[in-house]
Amino acid sequence: MTLSSSQRCAEEELRQVDRYWRAANYLSVGQIYLMDNPLLREPLKPEHIKPRLLGHWGTTPGLNFIYAHLNRAICQRDLDIIYICGPGHGGPGMVANTWLEGSYSEIYPQISEDASGIQKLFRQFSFPGGIPSHAAPETPGSINEGGELGYSLSHAFGAVFDNPGLIAACVIGDGEAETGPLASSWHGNKFLNPVRDGAVLPVLHLNGYKIANPTILGRMNDEDLRQLFSGYGYEPLFVSGHEPEQMHIQMARTLNIALDIIKDHQLRARAGRPTKGVPRWPMIILRSPKGWTGPQSVDGKKVEGFWRAHQVPVSSCRENDEHRQILENWMRSYQPDDLFDEQGRLKPELRALAPQGDKRMGASPFANGGRLRRELVPAERAKFAVELTSRGEPQVQSTEMLGRYLADIFTLNPDNFRLFGPDETASNRLSDVFDVTNRTWLEDIEPYDEQLAADGRVMEILSEHQCQGWLEGYLLTGRHGLFNCYEAFIHIVDSMFNQHAKWLKVTRKLPWRKPISSLNYLLSSHVWRQDHNGYSHQDPGFMDHVANKKADIVRIYLPPDANTLLWVADHCLQTWDRINVIVAGKQPAPQWLSAEEAAEHCAAGMGIWPWAGTEQDGTEPDVVLACAGDVPTMETLAAADLLREYLPDLSVRVVNVVDIMALQTREQHPHGLSAEAFDGIFTQNKPVIFAFHGYPSLIHRLTYQRNNHRNFHVSGFMEEGTTTTPFDMTVLNKLDRFHLAQAAIVHTEKLQGKADDILDDLQEKIAAHHRYVREYGEDLPEVRNWKWPSQQGSGGAPE
Amino acid sequence: MTLSSSQRCAEEELRQVDRYWRAANYLSVGQIYLMDNPLLREPLKPEHIKPRLLGHWGTTPGLNFIYAHLNRAICQRDLDIIYICGPGHGGPGMVANTWLEGSYSEIYPQISEDASGIQKLFRQFSFPGGIPSHAAPETPGSINEGGELGYSLSHAFGAVFDNPGLIAACVIGDGEAETGPLASSWHGNKFLNPVRDGAVLPVLHLNGYKIANPTILGRMNDEDLRQLFSGYGYEPLFVSGHEPEQMHIQMARTLNIALDIIKDHQLRARAGRPTKGVPRWPMIILRSPKGWTGPQSVDGKKVEGFWRAHQVPVSSCRENDEHRQILENWMRSYQPDDLFDEQGRLKPELRALAPQGDKRMGASPFANGGRLRRELVPAERAKFAVELTSRGEPQVQSTEMLGRYLADIFTLNPDNFRLFGPDETASNRLSDVFDVTNRTWLEDIEPYDEQLAADGRVMEILSEHQCQGWLEGYLLTGRHGLFNCYEAFIHIVDSMFNQHAKWLKVTRKLPWRKPISSLNYLLSSHVWRQDHNGYSHQDPGFMDHVANKKADIVRIYLPPDANTLLWVADHCLQTWDRINVIVAGKQPAPQWLSAEEAAEHCAAGMGIWPWAGTEQDGTEPDVVLACAGDVPTMETLAAADLLREYLPDLSVRVVNVVDIMALQTREQHPHGLSAEAFDGIFTQNKPVIFAFHGYPSLIHRLTYQRNNHRNFHVSGFMEEGTTTTPFDMTVLNKLDRFHLAQAAIVHTEKLQGKADDILDDLQEKIAAHHRYVREYGEDLPEVRNWKWPSQQGSGGAPE
Repeated sequence: MTLSSSQRCAEEELRQVDRYWRAANYLSVGQIYLMDNPLLREPLKPEHIKPRLLGHWGTTPGLNFIYAHLNRAICQRDLDIIYICGPGHGGPGMVANTWLEGSYSEIYPQISEDASGIQKLFRQFSFPGGIPSHAAPETPGSINEGGELGYSLSHAFGAVFDNPGLIAACVIGDGEAETGPLASSWHGNKFLNPVRDGAVLPVLHLNGYKIANPTILGRMNDEDLRQLFSGYGYEPLFVSGHEPEQMHIQMARTLNIALDIIKDHQLRARAGRPTKGVPRWPMIILRSPKGWTGPQSVDGKKVEGFWRAHQVPVSSCRENDEHRQILENWMRSYQPDDLFDEQGRLKPELRALAPQGDKRMGASPFANGGRLRRELVPAERAKFAVELTSRGEPQVQSTEMLGRYLADIFTLNPDNFRLFGPDETASNRLSDVFDVTNRTWLEDIEPYDEQLAADGRVMEILSEHQCQGWLEGYLLTGRHGLFNCYEAFIHIVDSMFNQHAKWLKVTRKLPWRKPISSLNYLLSSHVWRQDHNGYSHQDPGFMDHVANKKADIVRIYLPPDANTLLWVADHCLQTWDRINVIVAGKQPAPQWLSAEEAAEHCAAGMGIWPWAGTEQDGTEPDVVLACAGDVPTMETLAAADLLREYLPDLSVRVVNVVDIMALQTREQHPHGLSAEAFDGIFTQNKPVIFAFHGYPSLIHRLTYQRNNHRNFHVSGFMEEGTTTTPFDMTVLNKLDRFHLAQAAIVHTEKLQGKADDILDDLQEKIAAHHRYVREYGEDLPEVRNWKWPSQQGSGGAPE
Repeated sequence: MTLSSSQRCAEEELRQVDRYWRAANYLSVGQIYLMDNPLLREPLKPEHIKPRLLGHWGTTPGLNFIYAHLNRAICQRDLDIIYICGPGHGGPGMVANTWLEGSYSEIYPQISEDASGIQKLFRQFSFPGGIPSHAAPETPGSINEGGELGYSLSHAFGAVFDNPGLIAACVIGDGEAETGPLASSWHGNKFLNPVRDGAVLPVLHLNGYKIANPTILGRMNDEDLRQLFSGYGYEPLFVSGHEPEQMHIQMARTLNIALDIIKDHQLRARAGRPTKGVPRWPMIILRSPKGWTGPQSVDGKKVEGFWRAHQVPVSSCRENDEHRQILENWMRSYQPDDLFDEQGRLKPELRALAPQGDKRMGASPFANGGRLRRELVPAERAKFAVELTSRGEPQVQSTEMLGRYLADIFTLNPDNFRLFGPDETASNRLSDVFDVTNRTWLEDIEPYDEQLAADGRVMEILSEHQCQGWLEGYLLTGRHGLFNCYEAFIHIVDSMFNQHAKWLKVTRKLPWRKPISSLNYLLSSHVWRQDHNGYSHQDPGFMDHVANKKADIVRIYLPPDANTLLWVADHCLQTWDRINVIVAGKQPAPQWLSAEEAAEHCAAGMGIWPWAGTEQDGTEPDVVLACAGDVPTMETLAAADLLREYLPDLSVRVVNVVDIMALQTREQHPHGLSAEAFDGIFTQNKPVIFAFHGYPSLIHRLTYQRNNHRNFHVSGFMEEGTTTTPFDMTVLNKLDRFHLAQAAIVHTEKLQGKADDILDDLQEKIAAHHRYVREYGEDLPEVRNWKWPSQQGSGGAPE
């Protein structure tokens, strides 16, 4: 590629960029060290230094270097770029740059654009009541916390999907590059459509060291790196060195080339002449010293270009005069008087280098997605409602109904909704979405391939990390989505979930961060229906994990049938700033509630199913059978059926819980039921036989403050599983109808000693099950063919 | 490279290999489909077919192909190879091959080497009471479950560390290759020392499809693949096609080349003439059709070479005569009569192709590591004990003491212990281990680098996934290790933890699987001491996650000081078949117990600290202050100190819990305290102010069955965090001494309404804290300088 005129950068321009970079570096060091004397108008004294020195210098000068050059490109080309800061530890750099461009003071007016503002800027950093040390929700322009490494590039891809005008410049540290999620995220290029999506410009920043170790990629030679990233499908461009003047020339030129290539791919594709297959997008490999421009050495030990520069390169500057002098010399090397005027304002010719308004990376609406978010157009739920012919009928695959609903969502929201999953969308029975869209696929497509297209809107990659990271990036830039996943394997993203929940918690306190759409999980192929895949696929613990987070962020729903699933999904898709977990099965299963009943039941969160119990109006039941989850609901109803047969005089109440957060007290969770309402449902002293989808301890944990908790007897997954039949899974964990009926009898006071023959009979049924299933490899016909006896009881007919 | 004589394979030999392969394929199909008529001695009838057809055919013929060729190489070269089956779904293939070589029947004699054994082999697969569908603990020769994808290559590297004579042949499916953990695990080559470690031979098996999608790597062209894996540092060797004869020739030749390269690297290195830097180890890229040799198409739809071959390629063979005929033709295409004799035994000339004895991959002791495990030589704990000068003194970094202990462990166990961590060993204050060893590093080493060496035994990579995967592989092959990690980021491996816990649970029921060393976690840099790194680094939820698993597998320890940490670590390192979690801080902290007291306290799991309370012998206290975790313990003691000052007549008991599993009942956990012992410590009716390291709900969940549970008031992490001071972290979450003292007063009956002035005073202390910390950025001097008043009380002096 030859140099175009736009690729030749005037020396003078780069001299100004260098000054801008120096200003950012100066402000970064100041944040780590100073409480006062921000512009070094007097010699540094101990009391100017913070008592605790916190922060990460090592990565910061590189981040500042990239920021300054991106500013230049934005101005020159009028681009929309967001800066995704993989090395989130370089928080001081992000803060410094957004202050320099003015976006920081607009959001936080107390941090003004003058000496007083700089002093506060310095002081607040990593200071109690101030701001975190990482690029965090508080940091303007950030959509990637960076405290936990590995997700920057996934976020970058998520951000540019359906944002054709956006470039996500994504800085990836060579530490982060060692993580698994990051190593896989390079394949995002195979899912990026140059026509309708924006572009990602990865900048792999090799500064050679982590906390106390060299980096793997930093020690690889250029040829291996070139091969590695060419193999991933990129065009790697190198910028390497430490001498600022040469580095500025290289970086400006390289960035120009990269942006030209991006523009070229997009223009060709959008003109209908796309590159065949996956475009070879550019990436930049920037080698620069760790702690670049910082102290060469301290106490005779190497610092710049070594891991000692990682955090605070020179310590104890309050106590140690020599160290304080090193700090002062270091800060003065940036020539603050050349950068800031008498009042401490950035000099106008430097300020002029920053983009204007929303083009500033700290002010980009793409990095504050709520500003761009359009409400999701909901589908008409009623259209997909299952018509009940009787209680329990028809048998339906709940997620299949949801798939039909989602197809309409795609149609109604053609450019801001996507469905994500690790190659399980069809397996989870959502295939009806393929009536209206396809899977995104940019690699070659064979004639016999199905449902693949460059403009597909279902994102499937066998990496839960990418699904989660893409969806987060997509939501954080103002759009909507759903992640469908096998229940057991959602644990793969436990830690990503944590970070997103923490992000949401913090943003709720930041009025300038506008609400974003909720992150919605559909966990299908769940623990009770992984009988065929076996023990490794059986784990319902994600709910426990989620329940640890702030109550106002998290919701967990266990719809027992298709109509309740539709209500819940419809509801979740229209919420914001939350994380919603929906657990629902994909196998044909009985249907319990009409659409109207489902709406009422789900809105309440839980309720008594009068048609399923035998209690008389106005009296308390002898025993409560409670359930949450589709399989536990079916087993509970079958148990109620058995009890009615065996003990027609027993007064049984059946309670179903959809929203398990409602089990908590109102002080614990905003959905929590009042004590009166809870006692009205669960009584104050009757045995509650609770059949739960997950680990029993979760129900105890949610209900331990309730009056009747001592009478709660919970069955759930007890880590007993293997490859077997569906019903055998429940028997192994004592969640089956026979064990539930036994538990009800054992714990009901008036039956003590009076129903031993029934207990024996139930025990014999369990034994018969074991014999049959081992002989024939399938469940007892009486179990497989069980139906709710719709003729019984007057309240049995659905509305 | 020219062909040596060993690289030329006789045609006849490959014809036999092909027959062996056909036998494995035949037995694989049979497992998925047949209940009877195993050798097709009569036409297939409906009753011969299983009622539920389960299993994954797609990957299986490729796995069988590789297995057969590895057998050839083992025999020819007398190698020790283990087979790591990344596509664990290909369980039928692993079972078939271990049956063919005889190792299966040795372990499971009821599955004999004849027609009757074959019939049972078929029937048991994915059948209730039988075996799982994946390569599982039950599968001979397996150390990688494969139900959850992503970890095969990490396991392979872990297996060969310190096993110089072993080759781990690791088959990686192109689905698994998309996952993050797998994408990063290719960098394992940078940690493999050709002198003292064995070799990994990755076989990337591209069959092109996942469940319902093409694979990313399968669609990449050869040149991109060559670049990608060359970039990772490998020598990629291609085998590609579908015509068996040609494929056998290619594979045999390529495997010979790969093994020659491995031998060459090892010989050179072991002769003192190593390749500079990282040896370019071979890897094989095998392209073969999904469902190779299976039905081309069914009902007019493409099956072989397409995703429809993923699981059961032809369904409903009981009901559908045409389908059953397809199945019969398919199975007969392998010519069973050519493979098995009249009795159903594998013909002798084929059986002769398998290796003998422990060389068989299904019988390799390396894949049943307990057979090779030597007990760890423990270090002398007393040598590292902290000598208490008074209660609380000296201030010590607990993990630093552990580092000294671990240095001795390295010295005493020079070839079968390793320490793993994501670049946090020094940060976690374990640096004393570097007195006796280094970090493993095979890439270039600069003159100014420190503590790096090719023979280092500390494994650091910024990937928790690799740390965990390597350690699992290392343990599963019979060695010992410890994984040290920041507490918050251990959630990254939640799902890997799950799978390992499940693995251990199953192996406990398999007498032929000998016990392996426990997987030990040291979680330092914990939630209460991440004040500097901020909210993203603050998460104690891994304990909740762990507590969900089977009680006989998991242990969680919260040692409050250095001597207790030493006892716990020493204990954990000598256990087997468990997962031990140790949470301990790295900051200077007061020391409470002498070595002798620590031993007694830890062995009991919890206990009253009489020197810390004010209760009189023989009477019950007014209030119990309980604590678990080092920071909560310090705050609890400081609260006890405050209460003694304010309310000298109040009878306070201080209880410390090290082993939180002991809080459960004995029915729930083997460590659970008896009801009497529990009540003796916590009383039956006195308020218990419990300061806990983690989320409060975990304590409620562990104690809800206890008599006095209704009086438990637990403080812990409530998701309130940011970058602040250490003490402010506790105040934000009401875990600090002031809030604890308030809680004790509020909940003590005899103080009701009588101590309002004290409550006000404590409230003022909290306010003073807030003012001070925001003004000066550090904690109140009275907090920073607080010391346990050692002069008080007669029982104050440590033993």
